[in-house]
Amino acid sequence: MKQLEALFDHITSRVNVNLKPMGVDVAPYLKNAVPRERHARYYAFYALTTDHPMHFRFRSSSLSGTYFLGKTFVDRSILYKSDLRGDELKAKGDEVEFEGGRTRLFQDESFLISNSFLNKTLVHNNSKNPQIPEYFRILNTVAMPWANIHGTTTEGVYLGPFSTVDLSVMHSCVVGDFAYVQAGDLSRETIEPGRVWIKYDGLFEFDYVYPAGVVEKYVSLDGNGRLSGEFSDYLDERKEDFVPIYSSVVPDAMENVPDDAFVSLYAVIKGDCAVGHNALVAQRAHIENSRLGDGANAQENCYILNSRYDGMDVTAHGGKVIHTHLGIKVFVGFNSFLRGSENAEITVGTNSIVMPHTIIDAEEPIHVPDNSLVWGYVTRQADLDTQCISLDEFAKAKVLSLGNMRFQGDGAAFVRAFKHRIDHILEENGAYYDGSEETKGHAQKTQKVSFNILQPFQSGDATGMYPTMTIGDNA
Amino acid sequence: MKQLEALFDHITSRVNVNLKPMGVDVAPYLKNAVPRERHARYYAFYALTTDHPMHFRFRSSSLSGTYFLGKTFVDRSILYKSDLRGDELKAKGDEVEFEGGRTRLFQDESFLISNSFLNKTLVHNNSKNPQIPEYFRILNTVAMPWANIHGTTTEGVYLGPFSTVDLSVMHSCVVGDFAYVQAGDLSRETIEPGRVWIKYDGLFEFDYVYPAGVVEKYVSLDGNGRLSGEFSDYLDERKEDFVPIYSSVVPDAMENVPDDAFVSLYAVIKGDCAVGHNALVAQRAHIENSRLGDGANAQENCYILNSRYDGMDVTAHGGKVIHTHLGIKVFVGFNSFLRGSENAEITVGTNSIVMPHTIIDAEEPIHVPDNSLVWGYVTRQADLDTQCISLDEFAKAKVLSLGNMRFQGDGAAFVRAFKHRIDHILEENGAYYDGSEETKGHAQKTQKVSFNILQPFQSGDATGMYPTMTIGDNA
Repeated sequence: MKQLEALFDHITSRVNVNLKPMGVDVAPYLKNAVPRERHARYYAFYALTTDHPMHFRFRSSSLSGTYFLGKTFVDRSILYKSDLRGDELKAKGDEVEFEGGRTRLFQDESFLISNSFLNKTLVHNNSKNPQIPEYFRILNTVAMPWANIHGTTTEGVYLGPFSTVDLSVMHSCVVGDFAYVQAGDLSRETIEPGRVWIKYDGLFEFDYVYPAGVVEKYVSLDGNGRLSGEFSDYLDERKEDFVPIYSSVVPDAMENVPDDAFVSLYAVIKGDCAVGHNALVAQRAHIENSRLGDGANAQENCYILNSRYDGMDVTAHGGKVIHTHLGIKVFVGFNSFLRGSENAEITVGTNSIVMPHTIIDAEEPIHVPDNSLVWGYVTRQADLDTQCISLDEFAKAKVLSLGNMRFQGDGAAFVRAFKHRIDHILEENGAYYDGSEETKGHAQKTQKVSFNILQPFQSGDATGMYPTMTIGDNA
Repeated sequence: MKQLEALFDHITSRVNVNLKPMGVDVAPYLKNAVPRERHARYYAFYALTTDHPMHFRFRSSSLSGTYFLGKTFVDRSILYKSDLRGDELKAKGDEVEFEGGRTRLFQDESFLISNSFLNKTLVHNNSKNPQIPEYFRILNTVAMPWANIHGTTTEGVYLGPFSTVDLSVMHSCVVGDFAYVQAGDLSRETIEPGRVWIKYDGLFEFDYVYPAGVVEKYVSLDGNGRLSGEFSDYLDERKEDFVPIYSSVVPDAMENVPDDAFVSLYAVIKGDCAVGHNALVAQRAHIENSRLGDGANAQENCYILNSRYDGMDVTAHGGKVIHTHLGIKVFVGFNSFLRGSENAEITVGTNSIVMPHTIIDAEEPIHVPDNSLVWGYVTRQADLDTQCISLDEFAKAKVLSLGNMRFQGDGAAFVRAFKHRIDHILEENGAYYDGSEETKGHAQKTQKVSFNILQPFQSGDATGMYPTMTIGDNA
């Protein structure tokens, strides 16, 4: 495994040289994050459809997981059980708009991943970087387990476990455990653990920080890169369910899926489950004894257990929803954790928004009313007094202070932006499909997919590494 | 499937334009050989080891089966469930000798397959073409099911089902059903069905033709490319056994395989089987209730049932051995069919050679003595009178006529050449491995293998086709 070890050293030096000013050394995390032999055990896969551009080049790297669906270049990087989803990369000729300026892409946008280590990281696109919109850059970046890199280019960035960077541009930043950031251009910024920060320059800013001691209960990373806490315990208990799926060349399909819906062969479906029309269940979603209504979607790394979705509901990447009933068009943000139980069911009313990185760990039945915004740490109904507000009321706010949350700016713009984004997600996923070509989304476009399954070398210095591979045109 | 259909048309035109002078039209064979939807159903796989050069480029083609293990270029071709084994391709700098002349390779030898359709064809290397020894060329060639292309470059060639071309060079030739040819440079030659022809210019010539009506019983191809007969019946009865293997990303390994032996994960092992030290069981071999002694090998597309091999036995590509006991160092040639039964066992004595394309379909117990050469069509012991001879006696022959067989030339040279080749095969397969690096063969070198599993497009015009792929260096 000499080559793999040398690659870890290379990535460490590239990330550290960028993050030195921030006082960060990623060496201990990279030394122990994953037992080395596992890099040889798992494989990568590349999804082929005729509805997505086809280009993939992989060089001097180690890879597992992923499914691409867009142009991708990976150099001197380690992607460990990561999902890379390029199905919203921009196309040649697309016009992009950044804060009023406009420009056109001279070629298809591609993922460009160099000198980086992504550990169980979800990367989804729709980038907001105006500098070279042709490349979605992830350079000199280390992401610890279950982080989300979403529409954010990262250069010299450390992401803690279960953190999310969303629709931003990041240079030399440190993102703490379970922090969520959507804050435009950031440089040399350290985001503390458990902070949920949404900022749109000149328009609004939403800021919440978890109370002391809470994040550690759910997410804890020791100095050797070992992860513990209730989130990873919950995932670990279910990881065996994925073994038969990844052992099959063509895993078994879920039965009774409507023609216009899509359930990935790489999702776990257990017990009594049903999905409605135009629904989408992405790979590495885990659904057990649950019903997803029409147009609902369950994105990568979602866990949905004993729950009911009335329809048009979104569970963003990494959301966990247990013993919960969602009304119509409820949004559950990235990495949120809604844990009800038989005696303490959670219900979320129609048109409500569960902010990214919300924890509702119910000690009693909890009901979020229709048309609400809910955030932060909730264990009892009374906690909603300081962590939930009606969207109508929020839209009227200019300055708002509730519990640990501070908001200032245009409340209406905030609500509008969120609603617009939820509609965009539903649209992209095909929730509004009416049989016409224009309304097709991922649920309809990804159905006829096949996979190339790529395995690493099994012996000698190259164990765990891959040969150079190019799939698609050789440009 | 428009693109696949266009590709069939392209190959048809390229082969026909070469074979027109031979009065051959491959169109009906290509039109019906394989139901079109099957081309989308199966996948290809590329074996990765650190002991073999890594280069593969695949363009505008449809592919299933294969495992390569050598540099390979495939253009505008259809490889259907074919095995391509490049583990004996020559290396840059190797000196090659052709009939006294010598030259060195300026780069690694590569498979170059263009405008060809190979249907369940085994391609193995060790080519004998002095023109461009850097390329093992298969151009404008159609091979029907279970043909073997072995060490033979083919340009404008039609191979009938279960035929074999061996250590030859072929331009614009037609090889009949179940014919075997090893005859040096051939141009515009038609080899009749069931002929077994070995010719070494100026040294010897062996020639056998099956009696009228026999080949048709075992191999019959109608004008629409549909195969029938006892060979394909036998294979069809066993083809379901391969389904679980090809459904698994990493198929189950056989138990109790000695460290120095190799049993491919893509072989079927059923019932009570055992393999000895330095033994090799290649992919798509099918072994049931049989014991292979030390150094024995079972090559691709072998079927061995209720049989016992004493050791150092070779079953060449496509050999079928049923209710048979082989003594030590017995060679069973390409596509031979030895069918004994409980009441009519076949025994083949030590050091004997079963010629390629021999049929021993036992109606009573049949015993081939030690140190014999046996060929042709044998159903009773008495048939050996005209189809078996002691190798010592054969070595003395200058001219020999026995039943349908004619031999002329240097009998001793013929026997020597055969013995030398058997030793070469055993050596290459690692049968003589003694723990030293120099004695390693395929059994030892192929153990630490992983596979890239490549699937075709599943929808639209491109159904059944593959994107361009390059694995290994991009030169």
